[in-house]
Amino acid sequence: MATKHLRVGMIGYNFMGKAHSNAWRQVNPFFPELPAKVELGTICGRNAAAVEKARETLGWQKAATDWREVVNDPSIDIIDITTPNDTHAEIAIAAAQAGKAVLCEKPLAKSVAEAEAMVAAVKKAGVVNMVCHNYRRIPAVAFAKQLIERGELGDRIFHFRARYAQDWIADPNFPLVWRLQKEIAGSGTHGDINAHIIDIGRYLVGELDEVCGMMETFVKHRPLMAATGSGLGASASQQMGEVTVDDAVSWIGRFKNGAFANLEATRFAHGRKNHITFEINGSKGSLTFDFEDMNRLKFFNAGDPQGTQGFHDILITDGSVHPYLKAWWPGGHIIGYEHTFVNTFADFVSAVVSGHSVQPTFEDGLRNEEVLAAIEESSTSRQWVKLKH
Amino acid sequence: MATKHLRVGMIGYNFMGKAHSNAWRQVNPFFPELPAKVELGTICGRNAAAVEKARETLGWQKAATDWREVVNDPSIDIIDITTPNDTHAEIAIAAAQAGKAVLCEKPLAKSVAEAEAMVAAVKKAGVVNMVCHNYRRIPAVAFAKQLIERGELGDRIFHFRARYAQDWIADPNFPLVWRLQKEIAGSGTHGDINAHIIDIGRYLVGELDEVCGMMETFVKHRPLMAATGSGLGASASQQMGEVTVDDAVSWIGRFKNGAFANLEATRFAHGRKNHITFEINGSKGSLTFDFEDMNRLKFFNAGDPQGTQGFHDILITDGSVHPYLKAWWPGGHIIGYEHTFVNTFADFVSAVVSGHSVQPTFEDGLRNEEVLAAIEESSTSRQWVKLKH
Amino acid sequence: MATKHLRVGMIGYNFMGKAHSNAWRQVNPFFPELPAKVELGTICGRNAAAVEKARETLGWQKAATDWREVVNDPSIDIIDITTPNDTHAEIAIAAAQAGKAVLCEKPLAKSVAEAEAMVAAVKKAGVVNMVCHNYRRIPAVAFAKQLIERGELGDRIFHFRARYAQDWIADPNFPLVWRLQKEIAGSGTHGDINAHIIDIGRYLVGELDEVCGMMETFVKHRPLMAATGSGLGASASQQMGEVTVDDAVSWIGRFKNGAFANLEATRFAHGRKNHITFEINGSKGSLTFDFEDMNRLKFFNAGDPQGTQGFHDILITDGSVHPYLKAWWPGGHIIGYEHTFVNTFADFVSAVVSGHSVQPTFEDGLRNEEVLAAIEESSTSRQWVKLKH
Amino acid sequence: MATKHLRVGMIGYNFMGKAHSNAWRQVNPFFPELPAKVELGTICGRNAAAVEKARETLGWQKAATDWREVVNDPSIDIIDITTPNDTHAEIAIAAAQAGKAVLCEKPLAKSVAEAEAMVAAVKKAGVVNMVCHNYRRIPAVAFAKQLIERGELGDRIFHFRARYAQDWIADPNFPLVWRLQKEIAGSGTHGDINAHIIDIGRYLVGELDEVCGMMETFVKHRPLMAATGSGLGASASQQMGEVTVDDAVSWIGRFKNGAFANLEATRFAHGRKNHITFEINGSKGSLTFDFEDMNRLKFFNAGDPQGTQGFHDILITDGSVHPYLKAWWPGGHIIGYEHTFVNTFADFVSAVVSGHSVQPTFEDGLRNEEVLAAIEESSTSRQWVKLKH
Repeated sequence: MATKHLRVGMIGYNFMGKAHSNAWRQVNPFFPELPAKVELGTICGRNAAAVEKARETLGWQKAATDWREVVNDPSIDIIDITTPNDTHAEIAIAAAQAGKAVLCEKPLAKSVAEAEAMVAAVKKAGVVNMVCHNYRRIPAVAFAKQLIERGELGDRIFHFRARYAQDWIADPNFPLVWRLQKEIAGSGTHGDINAHIIDIGRYLVGELDEVCGMMETFVKHRPLMAATGSGLGASASQQMGEVTVDDAVSWIGRFKNGAFANLEATRFAHGRKNHITFEINGSKGSLTFDFEDMNRLKFFNAGDPQGTQGFHDILITDGSVHPYLKAWWPGGHIIGYEHTFVNTFADFVSAVVSGHSVQPTFEDGLRNEEVLAAIEESSTSRQWVKLKH
Repeated sequence: MATKHLRVGMIGYNFMGKAHSNAWRQVNPFFPELPAKVELGTICGRNAAAVEKARETLGWQKAATDWREVVNDPSIDIIDITTPNDTHAEIAIAAAQAGKAVLCEKPLAKSVAEAEAMVAAVKKAGVVNMVCHNYRRIPAVAFAKQLIERGELGDRIFHFRARYAQDWIADPNFPLVWRLQKEIAGSGTHGDINAHIIDIGRYLVGELDEVCGMMETFVKHRPLMAATGSGLGASASQQMGEVTVDDAVSWIGRFKNGAFANLEATRFAHGRKNHITFEINGSKGSLTFDFEDMNRLKFFNAGDPQGTQGFHDILITDGSVHPYLKAWWPGGHIIGYEHTFVNTFADFVSAVVSGHSVQPTFEDGLRNEEVLAAIEESSTSRQWVKLKH
Repeated sequence: MATKHLRVGMIGYNFMGKAHSNAWRQVNPFFPELPAKVELGTICGRNAAAVEKARETLGWQKAATDWREVVNDPSIDIIDITTPNDTHAEIAIAAAQAGKAVLCEKPLAKSVAEAEAMVAAVKKAGVVNMVCHNYRRIPAVAFAKQLIERGELGDRIFHFRARYAQDWIADPNFPLVWRLQKEIAGSGTHGDINAHIIDIGRYLVGELDEVCGMMETFVKHRPLMAATGSGLGASASQQMGEVTVDDAVSWIGRFKNGAFANLEATRFAHGRKNHITFEINGSKGSLTFDFEDMNRLKFFNAGDPQGTQGFHDILITDGSVHPYLKAWWPGGHIIGYEHTFVNTFADFVSAVVSGHSVQPTFEDGLRNEEVLAAIEESSTSRQWVKLKH
Repeated sequence: MATKHLRVGMIGYNFMGKAHSNAWRQVNPFFPELPAKVELGTICGRNAAAVEKARETLGWQKAATDWREVVNDPSIDIIDITTPNDTHAEIAIAAAQAGKAVLCEKPLAKSVAEAEAMVAAVKKAGVVNMVCHNYRRIPAVAFAKQLIERGELGDRIFHFRARYAQDWIADPNFPLVWRLQKEIAGSGTHGDINAHIIDIGRYLVGELDEVCGMMETFVKHRPLMAATGSGLGASASQQMGEVTVDDAVSWIGRFKNGAFANLEATRFAHGRKNHITFEINGSKGSLTFDFEDMNRLKFFNAGDPQGTQGFHDILITDGSVHPYLKAWWPGGHIIGYEHTFVNTFADFVSAVVSGHSVQPTFEDGLRNEEVLAAIEESSTSRQWVKLKH
């Protein structure tokens, strides 16, 4: 049924490049009713040999080393940005100016000002745009949204409590990798993982009114990585360098609808690998979610008969009622991490064909930046900070 | 409101004696509406010094060494039997003949014939009788019974699957304690723990029609316990003795209502301490239970809206709807193992005052013996065995 | 072995009176090695008929209506205070002056000033004193303390995250009971349940350095309770009254050792009955606990071999290694809520005989009040607040 | 690095065709180090229009309607059989005779005799062969195998307890679909799902010595499906037809190494969607697994220090130590159902290049058929049945 073709140019080819390539390859086989066929056109990166290898492994037609060339290639319909955060704005703005639909990895930008410029650019160009907060399309999260919209939690939300916890640097002897250096990584937990749970909160509960937070670098100095092939050995690896990003951020806040926000992001929680958890409490029920068990949603319905009230342990795999699952497998057969990208890209393809952006748009990305900036300001000023929007 | 007094004579004073004494002490303070006040009259055991010490610790008025004296004491109303299994029949029959209400620890007897004699005795004497299958009065189990009777699982039961798993002898070097010697213990897992899950099955699902099972002694020889004070030391402890009871029993069967039975009891499941689990599947729903988390019952209701179907994780602590809990604490405050005895004894006290036995009666104990005997026969004959009742 | 007798006078006889009476009754039977026998001497309350009924049900020797009489009764050794919070200080100070050992329910007082006076009084009198933060002696919590002290979490703690969530007023139509009125209850979630998790944090992690929090009354008006026997009926019950205590409190903070604190207490979390949860992350491992499953502790040991790392799901029922459990049942047989009081009282009895107070002392109660006051100040001033100690 | 190309011909294109096509597409992008590149050559089915549509959606080069043509196509290297069970033998034998490597969906055949003929054919032809028991390559299951082989469960296994439970026909009014008709489906739960847990048992524990089982059709008549387009409507749908396959099978047995087997497969367990669970108890530890949470394995290590013993809740997502995961995502990012096929096909591709079959071979498929046949015989004869191998 799909006669239209959309050719993608992807800028960047590392971890996110692998996840995005997979999603582009999988989107038509699993969503055969989509109104367009996707072609993996050009993959782009600065290192010619590496990008050519990625092209072959990941299944792209062409490789390129100059992103401007790809952005301006008239045969390309969609620009997909998976490069480091500090390059998002420049590429996205150029892509919008070239009239391309733009899909950009999160966080949208490295500052509010940049994000504002990006929103202005896509608005001016009138192009379809999306920031890749893929966790919105975990079926359990999308179903949580449906339950809330249907009123299953009641007409008031009292609490949104979320945590994104990892443990990969909990050992103080873990070395000073690039992700712990501000000039390369931009920020630590804040932009990397706090951004995700802020987005989930905004998606499920609404806009924030004010925030108050604290950020910390628990381990301020770490062993430098030994120079590769240097033969310097153990003593060299004991030279220490400064960690210049945050290790953890913890904050409280209020949503505009009056709900409490309590969020925390950390890389110092031993045993937590990619532990994204949230609980929402409303006047008629509650929901809880844990990404490490992402095919489940737990729902307490205060309307159940009193004796049998208890969190429903819902396996979110039923394609006849749970979002996105018709595309996948029969009930009881779970999906994994990368499927969240395929679900996201399916909606993006439809949006591109229809010409109407779907959430989360660049504007959502901007709102997210504003919250991140407010928390950071609060952490420095030790004051509550109001959000503008 | 309770003006009537009931004086108890308890025969036996070890592990079960501790649990029963506690229940007699607690039954009035926690069930103040009971129609009688219990007095802890006489505790009885063969070792005078030990029983006197138990009397003081456990709070009994008198100590005795001759159970016949206690059974025939006219000031005693209730005989509570917590002695080893091979003495149950003789004491219970004498107590019935003396006109006492009789509460007997499980298993009721060491053979079907003995159990039949006990049932005949209590019937002839017309005395209130009960076998102490305390797990029926775990609130979650009693509530499961209510749900089934209300039809919440539908009009048909398809499966009853249960397991009682422990691990205290999973190490092959664990010594040959008395519980592993048939002449003292009677049987191994079969009478000790399989008896419990058989009782739960009979309580919740109904009578069995036929069974087929296997029993095994996995570790046939174990180190002898060193003789106390012998000075024989390590080499002596390496002398081996024969294990003469079963280590595990596994069996399948059919209930008279057509449901499948699949049960297993073992002391060889590392990590399982007192892991009594069951699952019941009916035409409208399912239930699961785990004793190590005994304040919960999980209930799947096929009548829930499709999208939010999932096992309800019910915390069984709500005194306004869950059985026995009004006696205890506010919702969310859990109870433990010994409370199952207090709940049981509360019902027994009411039964004694009313003159009408409540389940599980000696007749239930007899039915249980018949099932145990049938499984044992099946294990030997390697044939299916039909139950008579 | 116990020849010494200690006679208790208990002031108050409601919910906590029931729990305390049980603990006084159970402490000797379950801890037979204690150096003293406890006698339930006098129970005291203002309503003579009600206190007499409580005396009979709960097993006390005498009833009284004037607490001063009990405090000054020379035959009484211990004063146990379970009255409303606003009376703690006066009774405790009088008891100390009379030379009694004093056990006081939490929160210790209704202000820091009162708590200071109480600490001064017990110090001056040199009497054994304890504030009844019974959750410290949940075996899983006491074992968590042992693991931390042994260094199993490493030499640094990074995060303490705790929540005390209930749901009994989550329905906005729940009536305006006395606990929601400041003049009777003193405070809402703050003193009632936030106090508990603050105490657990102080016990396991240490003293706090600074805090920043927010408190809220989500539902500001509720239906008035119908006057008893008034015949006013439904329309009267729709008259609304003002809720004058907090519904929820959420706060962040820093411990003196640098760990992050993130705590929340609420009565608006549907499905959470008495959900006290915490997670502690250290440089070598993590712990998690949930009171609704209070016989378990989950422990992640970063020293485990990499492939089999994962939270150990520890059933805390092994009397040979887990605190307090030797007193109770064999492994796998769980205990419940009220056992935490029995464990606490056992340690208090030993303390009284030895003459040396054990934690948590009145000084701990004072520290707790200081934290509560700092959070409340922070919520009003919208500033971070430093703790003095 | 992969210069060799392997072209696949797949016979069949329904549910399994979708899963297999996906695995063929994904195997090189995710396992780039494989020694050959896979080409999705020809997809084959009887309905020309349907197979052409599948070809386009699933990404195959050619479509065909005659499987013999595909089997004899000299450009095809691998024949992948996903057709109904009753056609496996004929196609696989022809493929072997044509010298192709053969991958066949489970169950291998519809009888032991057929399976024997298939084994003989692949042996005679000397072709690489595999039966697609994909659950062996769930990373958690493959890791369980490694732990057992390393001796982490000890030198003896005592129990293997497994269950495959679904609920799609638990409602007695569910219609008589083709899977419930023996002439089309072959068997019910037995060949469909019991076969899976038998394979897991053989893989992890070893060969069976003897079995004793029961099979049952709980609901013997069901509403007929309305004839398509017939206009017969509701009344017609109430006509009843006979269910001719088993609804459930439950069996006990002994492995040759002395371990107990206790297995059950059912479609009548409300709330269980694809609930494949097992527990293995050995002399040093235990393992448990649940497919609905397939990225976890729980491991009890009796060698842990006593106080902190407890099942380790292992998230099996660490590519540096857990099998197959290096191919996928960073730790904490789970995989789903279809990845088990990709992992399987990766090993098969290597096997084809090396010329040496890897487990599970057709011989494993034959052993599985023998166990199925023995259980069926036991269910009919009501006797224990010995396995020949």
